[in-house]
Amino acid sequence: MKKGLLFVVSGPSGTGKGTVCGEFVRRTEISLSVSMTTRKPRPGETDGKDYYFVSEELFLKTVSNDGFLEYAKVYDHYYGTPKAPVTTKLAAGTDVLLEIDTQGALDVRREWPEGIFVYILPPSMRELRRRIEGRGTESREAIDLRLGESLKEMERIDQYDYCVINARAQEAADSLTAILRAEHARVGHDIHETIRAYKEEIRCYTHPSI
Amino acid sequence: MKKGLLFVVSGPSGTGKGTVCGEFVRRTEISLSVSMTTRKPRPGETDGKDYYFVSEELFLKTVSNDGFLEYAKVYDHYYGTPKAPVTTKLAAGTDVLLEIDTQGALDVRREWPEGIFVYILPPSMRELRRRIEGRGTESREAIDLRLGESLKEMERIDQYDYCVINARAQEAADSLTAILRAEHARVGHDIHETIRAYKEEIRCYTHPSI
Repeated sequence: MKKGLLFVVSGPSGTGKGTVCGEFVRRTEISLSVSMTTRKPRPGETDGKDYYFVSEELFLKTVSNDGFLEYAKVYDHYYGTPKAPVTTKLAAGTDVLLEIDTQGALDVRREWPEGIFVYILPPSMRELRRRIEGRGTESREAIDLRLGESLKEMERIDQYDYCVINARAQEAADSLTAILRAEHARVGHDIHETIRAYKEEIRCYTHPSI
Repeated sequence: MKKGLLFVVSGPSGTGKGTVCGEFVRRTEISLSVSMTTRKPRPGETDGKDYYFVSEELFLKTVSNDGFLEYAKVYDHYYGTPKAPVTTKLAAGTDVLLEIDTQGALDVRREWPEGIFVYILPPSMRELRRRIEGRGTESREAIDLRLGESLKEMERIDQYDYCVINARAQEAADSLTAILRAEHARVGHDIHETIRAYKEEIRCYTHPSI
């Protein structure tokens, strides 16, 4: 059986990768991985959908059992990608999507080098600023700091396979869909099985023009 | 300026790659390369569209000037892909499509390793036979021989980047289109120019919220 593809998407905060990934999930059969966290659910968040909300004790036990593809502590809370559901789905032939930060992506790359790593860029820094300002939740100083961090993060882009510029979410989702389709057409180890089957087929039919 | 991509498509005779490539050309902006040959035009063939029909003298002069990306003698006639129009278009940012045989493709790969190499497979050997029989131009013995050669040729498929199965021409053309789009999103040497431009942009705007 053909294994699923692990698809990892990162990009600076405010670049709209959540919207793009949502549209990508709707159009394809890819399964979005649900992260585990020790922070409390916010109003409207559902356990098992937005996150698996767990105790710090359970999280750290999972860490010590090597149960994460990647994890990190952000301020006071842990966030991580549980390994088991991902590897189970991939083995069953289902593609899996992770939407994680650059550090997480590089950790996953070490564990799963055959993954497909996609970086989403804003069309310009001015537009990225406009989008963050549009949220209205941060001071100008905080935004400046965030943009500086985004630029530093972008320097790691050459560790990704693909880069998609999100000018319009629909078109960026088109690109992700094209990348997934193309990657499924990649010549891999399984190609020789196909050729062997073709040879077998030719040997099998006794009356050649049936 | 971003260079165009060189897209090379091969596949066994009868697999329908001509139809698939025709549809692919209609949907995208890719430019189909016209081969040069010393054979005479058949009724309905146009010089400069189907082939460049040239004398053996001119062909061999082009060979000695290293003017072909690949060429071969098939029975009594020479066929080749002229290098100049391809490299000119690629330099101008136009994608170029070559529809050539396996040997030609491997020659091109040596000259242009960054090309995208796609192999088109029939859905089954039985279907390939059916398609060749449908032409009604060959004896059963000739068809058997041809299928055997196709199988031998297929063993070189792992020198290609992608493999597309042509069950329906429209879907195979969808796959070629997706591969082209994905390849344009590949992280390449030019990505750092983009990031540099983003940095420059941030440095340039003096009033950050304009």
